[in-house]
Amino acid sequence: MSTDQATAIPLRSRTSIPHPLDPLSVAECETARQSILKLRGSNVAIRFRAIALDEPLKTELCQFLDAEHSGTLSSNTPRPPRVAKAQYDVVNVNKDVAYTESWIDLDSGDEVRHRAVERHHQAALTTHEFQAFADTCFASPLYNKAIDEFKLPEGFVVTVDPWPYGGPDEDEIAPRYMQGLCFARDTRSGNADSNHYAYPLPIIPILDTATGEIVRIDRLATGGKEDGLKYGTHKASILDHCQPAEYIPELLGIPLRTDLKTLNVVQPDGPSFKVSNESLVEWQKWRFRVGFSPREGATLHDVRYDGRSVLYRLSLSEMTVPYGDPRPPFHRKQAFDFGDAGAGRAANNLELGCDCLGTIKYFDAVMAEADGSASVSKNVRPCTDPGSIGWKHTNFRTGRAVVTRSRELVIQFIITLANYEYIFAYKLDQAGAISVETRATGIVSVVNIDPGKTSPWGNVVSAGALAQNHQHIFCIRIDPAIDGNANTVIMEESLPMPMSKEINPFGNGYEVRQTPVTKSQWIDAEPRNNRVIKITNQSKYNPVSGKPVSYKFTPSATQLLLAHPDSILARRAQFAQHHVWVTKYKDGELWAGGEFTNQSKKEVDGVSDAVARQDIVENEDVVVWNVFGLTHNPRTEDWPVMPVEIFQLHISPSDFFTANPAIDVPGSKNQSSILAPGAKSCCDESGAVQQAASSHLQGTGPDLDPKTNT
Amino acid sequence: MSTDQATAIPLRSRTSIPHPLDPLSVAECETARQSILKLRGSNVAIRFRAIALDEPLKTELCQFLDAEHSGTLSSNTPRPPRVAKAQYDVVNVNKDVAYTESWIDLDSGDEVRHRAVERHHQAALTTHEFQAFADTCFASPLYNKAIDEFKLPEGFVVTVDPWPYGGPDEDEIAPRYMQGLCFARDTRSGNADSNHYAYPLPIIPILDTATGEIVRIDRLATGGKEDGLKYGTHKASILDHCQPAEYIPELLGIPLRTDLKTLNVVQPDGPSFKVSNESLVEWQKWRFRVGFSPREGATLHDVRYDGRSVLYRLSLSEMTVPYGDPRPPFHRKQAFDFGDAGAGRAANNLELGCDCLGTIKYFDAVMAEADGSASVSKNVRPCTDPGSIGWKHTNFRTGRAVVTRSRELVIQFIITLANYEYIFAYKLDQAGAISVETRATGIVSVVNIDPGKTSPWGNVVSAGALAQNHQHIFCIRIDPAIDGNANTVIMEESLPMPMSKEINPFGNGYEVRQTPVTKSQWIDAEPRNNRVIKITNQSKYNPVSGKPVSYKFTPSATQLLLAHPDSILARRAQFAQHHVWVTKYKDGELWAGGEFTNQSKKEVDGVSDAVARQDIVENEDVVVWNVFGLTHNPRTEDWPVMPVEIFQLHISPSDFFTANPAIDVPGSKNQSSILAPGAKSCCDESGAVQQAASSHLQGTGPDLDPKTNT
Repeated sequence: MSTDQATAIPLRSRTSIPHPLDPLSVAECETARQSILKLRGSNVAIRFRAIALDEPLKTELCQFLDAEHSGTLSSNTPRPPRVAKAQYDVVNVNKDVAYTESWIDLDSGDEVRHRAVERHHQAALTTHEFQAFADTCFASPLYNKAIDEFKLPEGFVVTVDPWPYGGPDEDEIAPRYMQGLCFARDTRSGNADSNHYAYPLPIIPILDTATGEIVRIDRLATGGKEDGLKYGTHKASILDHCQPAEYIPELLGIPLRTDLKTLNVVQPDGPSFKVSNESLVEWQKWRFRVGFSPREGATLHDVRYDGRSVLYRLSLSEMTVPYGDPRPPFHRKQAFDFGDAGAGRAANNLELGCDCLGTIKYFDAVMAEADGSASVSKNVRPCTDPGSIGWKHTNFRTGRAVVTRSRELVIQFIITLANYEYIFAYKLDQAGAISVETRATGIVSVVNIDPGKTSPWGNVVSAGALAQNHQHIFCIRIDPAIDGNANTVIMEESLPMPMSKEINPFGNGYEVRQTPVTKSQWIDAEPRNNRVIKITNQSKYNPVSGKPVSYKFTPSATQLLLAHPDSILARRAQFAQHHVWVTKYKDGELWAGGEFTNQSKKEVDGVSDAVARQDIVENEDVVVWNVFGLTHNPRTEDWPVMPVEIFQLHISPSDFFTANPAIDVPGSKNQSSILAPGAKSCCDESGAVQQAASSHLQGTGPDLDPKTNT
Repeated sequence: MSTDQATAIPLRSRTSIPHPLDPLSVAECETARQSILKLRGSNVAIRFRAIALDEPLKTELCQFLDAEHSGTLSSNTPRPPRVAKAQYDVVNVNKDVAYTESWIDLDSGDEVRHRAVERHHQAALTTHEFQAFADTCFASPLYNKAIDEFKLPEGFVVTVDPWPYGGPDEDEIAPRYMQGLCFARDTRSGNADSNHYAYPLPIIPILDTATGEIVRIDRLATGGKEDGLKYGTHKASILDHCQPAEYIPELLGIPLRTDLKTLNVVQPDGPSFKVSNESLVEWQKWRFRVGFSPREGATLHDVRYDGRSVLYRLSLSEMTVPYGDPRPPFHRKQAFDFGDAGAGRAANNLELGCDCLGTIKYFDAVMAEADGSASVSKNVRPCTDPGSIGWKHTNFRTGRAVVTRSRELVIQFIITLANYEYIFAYKLDQAGAISVETRATGIVSVVNIDPGKTSPWGNVVSAGALAQNHQHIFCIRIDPAIDGNANTVIMEESLPMPMSKEINPFGNGYEVRQTPVTKSQWIDAEPRNNRVIKITNQSKYNPVSGKPVSYKFTPSATQLLLAHPDSILARRAQFAQHHVWVTKYKDGELWAGGEFTNQSKKEVDGVSDAVARQDIVENEDVVVWNVFGLTHNPRTEDWPVMPVEIFQLHISPSDFFTANPAIDVPGSKNQSSILAPGAKSCCDESGAVQQAASSHLQGTGPDLDPKTNT
């Protein structure tokens, strides 16, 4: 029997010195909390938004990392200071301040930097605020008056999904709002997980977060294509035509499949990866650290293969989900899930077996509660994917096949944002490649539609429920360090050539053209030219090919932001308008859509502004941002919970190594497969490969006797 | 301990009546062989090229299938005749005939159709011809004279890879040729699997297959970028600067990795799929038949989900691999691996464990040897992939997560064409989607390059070995039957809209525009418009959404053929110049590049000619062909054996079902994962989901006491 253990990576004891990249410990979180409470004094209430590690300045960290990797680390090695960055509200003190930030040196407990974020920016939303929203609605006279207009069926109660407000209208004097999407839940089963999304209600209450009051009720159109922008076409018995849409097994109403036999992924000797000291991961020549922030979720740092530097940092930077239904106020359905709320905050507690197979460990993520105390969640999981064929070759003359399986190490976290789920995974393989994968699942956002109608703005996935068309646009931030920090980004294309007697007489030649990126710019995908982005080190040459070492990726030509360039949606999401952004490294410049996305009117200090600086990026410390998306026009198969949609960014070495780095992976006979009697084994336990059964290509003897045809 | 069994699907006994789609049995192959030998008489020698099932005419087969699916099959049901199609040479009889074809009725043994293929077409190459080629070279004075010009190192012998000739030059009177790529193998280790590709030789012997003689030696350029089209820059000691490039473990020269722990995929209760009667596969509501032909390899037929028709037939239709090195004669490196040789013929014998994990069965493929006798190979494998998350939703209020894993059924075969391997897989998932996946691996094609030089036409992956730039362009043939044979193809795009007060006041709206394909045409990919191809049934409407049922795919905008439109490469491969072709069904029209690709001068009766017929395809029996490719400019990491490059066509239901068809898949706790002490399980064995540990989003209590901040 397999004896896999799932173990928690132990939190650091107070006696060991943290690595500069280790996430905060519970104790450090507490230190920061206490410092801030002391600083602000006992006459004010502090509501914490976040406390997390303030990553060191790059120059300081690189110095430390160099010493670490060269084995010269000692007690004399200068260490970047351990600093916690806290974001919090000083309740009811200064209305010109959106929120306050303090940087606390964790050795001294001193505040080393302070910022009062001005009111025209809005703080991200916190779990506390999400939690409180529904209750505020239920207590509001304005809300109740609106709800009373509807004749809800017996046994149904209203439930409110909290959302960020989206882009305010031009002339709107907008305090910090939240908006609520309303649905009704059938309580008659007594099951709290009955799916309320089947019963959408056409109102959106607006909360002023400062006053704690519902200040407005937005009305939603429920018409069909014949109704244009018209409102009020619905009846009071607004849900009578709707249908249940359960997904939890006991309410499903149909039996579960019974013909699925057990399939187990087992590692009888334990996993091949090693996790130490909270954050250090080692596996198959890879060595890197895993970070975690409330905004980004899991991040990778100091990623090296066989001791060589590949990436300084890799992260999900931002995502936006604009809706394409033009009927107001749906233009305000445009969340920035990282900036508005925080992927780290929204990350699921991962449980054994369901999300990842095989041997599982998990990283503990430390985050602050509203009172600043630390809570520990098991949000990030490393595990191994069995993979499929890594490489194979059969010598047709001898019939000998050598084949290896490609395993991948997966660092995964899953976030839930009300109705939607996103599964994020960093995948590293044995051939030196890194992938970032995003998967969308969960429940599509629906609004009420009158019975019998259809709409050009979405699909009726359930009677009375219109799943609106929308996009999901993601941005990954790649901070490369290809054999060092000074890199050059090159755009490479494969282009047709004219026929010519001197150069291309038969017309089959094609040109591979490289264009270096000299100043910061954006680049769009162009797969029809095989446009590839190479991140090179122009000072390091591959000794075999003579070319600069590099890593590369092919940007997918997915659809970019559809919203009109003059729309507030486009102004808020400049990042979503091009596939690749190349910028010069700047400490703290982590967020493609800018630092403040919640309720923004435009993108500020995101990649668009960074590129506008026109920095020289050739042979410099560059950052490459990759944007890709999914235009999601829902189908009925996406209901009630959608099958995953998968997107992958694949970053692979290109003349970085002198040969396939996985050439030394043993060919593996899978020990769990039993041979049928008489069949030859193709691999033995030591990894040596025996001669395979005769390949069909060997054929029979050459000459045939015409008389016997033998 | 797991007790997986790998079993062969038993060949049909003589007493059972074959299904019209069952591949030929050994006995049927023998019947055809005997008929032909009798027909042609004993004075001639017959060299068989292929004997395979001639698939029934669609109208006849559909009649039979309808009866089968409606349960009304009886001994009176008209059955399409069982016919074997044989291709063979009548040796030395008629030089105006390329080869001969006979269709043999397997009941009567009669020849029911006969065709003498005219000489201006060329037969595909057979394994026998591949096998004989090297020996013919070694015995040729012309070849030996050329080889003697080189001073090969001690202990090296020459080895010749047989290739199809490629496109003849315009004025070439071209008999049926083959060309040979020459390399030298180091015999000093005594190991026959020493990698000869590391030592390329700059000659190509040309064989006249009719006379059996080497008639010409083509000389290859070995210069660098400074040498243009110049030949003869190399020295006689042509291999002295080359380096070994072993990949088999015992010759590797470096130790294999030892830190990879066992990872097993086990199915203790056996597989969930069921294979019966040679070709029928049932799994998770899918039901379909697997066919096999010497040209296409594995094919899928009569694919249904939960009893509803989805596809009539699915297959790999053609692929071409044009090289982009303009120096003659490299313009003749352009194989059509299906038409020139045959994917079925080149298919690997698959062995346990190495190529596929878990419980493995395999299909026996029956093919004819040169004497017409049947040989049986285990070339096609169905197996199950463990998959990852299928769908997930966590109710943030209660913390309850429901998650299912998505398993896939994989029908896989692998082909080796001299240096390259391709892994083809049909994958079916539980949510009604079908994917066709191709993976390229194996050894890149290299030619000799002078020491110290580099070339714009490829990459030096090993000293003296230039891996030439090239493309791999594939075509998949989709013969849909979406709830029936009369389908309409629709091109759907998501397009921006102007801002307007009446329709789109805030500019967030976007239009989903559908354009039906009325006459046969090609369509290119355009992901920036989210261009999607939907194959619909305009007579069947989804009762929930009101839209016609359909299946859809997004054609990838991969790079199409780079060769100049006037080049012979482009004329031979019209199919490779557009991403999607929509044609009207025609019996026997299976091959995108035309029936005769070997040494063709242009594509004849491929998709381009089919489209030119301008048939009405609206609400008709349509066929959809999808083309995608990889432009492969080799990197050093592709050497000596390249890590797999993966391409996938994903065909998914779109308003075909009324909800997610996988909603009834039980949430699965992976039984091989052991819980750490104290952690709660999220799933139990019955599939019911218990409450997960509290999700972080629940937060803590709402109000904070300013005095205690608690």
